[in-house]
Amino acid sequence: MTTVREPKQDRSRATRQRLLESTIVCLAEMGWGATTVAVVAEHSGVSRGAAQHHFPTREDLITAALEHMFDSRMQQAVAAAASAPAVQKTEAVLTGLMEYFTGPLFKAAVQVWTAAAADPLLKERIVPLEAKFGRVAHRTTIQALGVDDSDRATHHLVQATLDLARGLGLADLLTDDSARRGRIVTQWAATLDAALDATRSASAQR
Amino acid sequence: MTTVREPKQDRSRATRQRLLESTIVCLAEMGWGATTVAVVAEHSGVSRGAAQHHFPTREDLITAALEHMFDSRMQQAVAAAASAPAVQKTEAVLTGLMEYFTGPLFKAAVQVWTAAAADPLLKERIVPLEAKFGRVAHRTTIQALGVDDSDRATHHLVQATLDLARGLGLADLLTDDSARRGRIVTQWAATLDAALDATRSASAQR
Repeated sequence: MTTVREPKQDRSRATRQRLLESTIVCLAEMGWGATTVAVVAEHSGVSRGAAQHHFPTREDLITAALEHMFDSRMQQAVAAAASAPAVQKTEAVLTGLMEYFTGPLFKAAVQVWTAAAADPLLKERIVPLEAKFGRVAHRTTIQALGVDDSDRATHHLVQATLDLARGLGLADLLTDDSARRGRIVTQWAATLDAALDATRSASAQR
Repeated sequence: MTTVREPKQDRSRATRQRLLESTIVCLAEMGWGATTVAVVAEHSGVSRGAAQHHFPTREDLITAALEHMFDSRMQQAVAAAASAPAVQKTEAVLTGLMEYFTGPLFKAAVQVWTAAAADPLLKERIVPLEAKFGRVAHRTTIQALGVDDSDRATHHLVQATLDLARGLGLADLLTDDSARRGRIVTQWAATLDAALDATRSASAQR
């Protein structure tokens, strides 16, 4: 029995992974209403029974998918910025963030947030997830920019940057907004750099 | 017949107005899925037949409601800022904008944008509406701030401000985010003022 246990666990993990990936794609492309366990099972080539064994309800599947995905994707999104030269670093970090906030994971999250706004039970499950999402995004951005989050102005500027990214993500929901977004990112990188510099000088003088 | 025509038209206009107002409330509170012509008719105390006479389909009702509402509400939102002293004007304009982007109309719009993302026919009707929404918001903000939109940096800073407002609106969808939002608005007002000043000096030197 011990010789088959390992592959079985692997298969189970691979099935789970496929279901979670498909959930994000289905939510982003078909919306909340159409994303049922049965639809996701079919999309990922998993039997409906196996899908239901892993995730008894749609809410279980969807919260698991969002939770599982966003950690790793956020890291990937800004990792590329680490190798950018210092003078272009802020714009590289912002560009990475925007890729994240205009990708399938954010589009899936908007579907779920919106459904939760009109569904108190779903909302109860989603609110802690949204808070975690916000914390991870903030920490990752602070690290990528290499700034001091204990400074109040810096903290608020990074928060504003993430709210801007969220707004640009929403603006990309129905149409390809990349040309306009590119110009705004360039402008915001310059403005943010100037504001962070002013903050650094102010705290050096204290 | 001429003596009754006028009141009849008035009644018809009042019925239409009630249906449009109810549509926004229903969308914001119950979500896209639950907002049918029948539900809106009941919410507004209009007979289902009368509602269907005015708006044969749900799509007709919802696009009319969004279109009708957002013009006037946007004006109201920033009108209060006109009387603010110059030194607090930017923060007053931003506060007005945020009220707009966290109110029922924006919450209703998010429900519709999100549904349209997964529904090509609805999307076709909503994309022009979203574009108009963006133009009106930009023009109103430019006027309220009293800045020169022909300057490129100014144009992009105002666009970024509206994307930030959209992001803060989305962050308010599930929880009351007003305390955090207040701090971000104060920071953004200071950063925006500094950036607009720098832009003015740069163009004065040209």
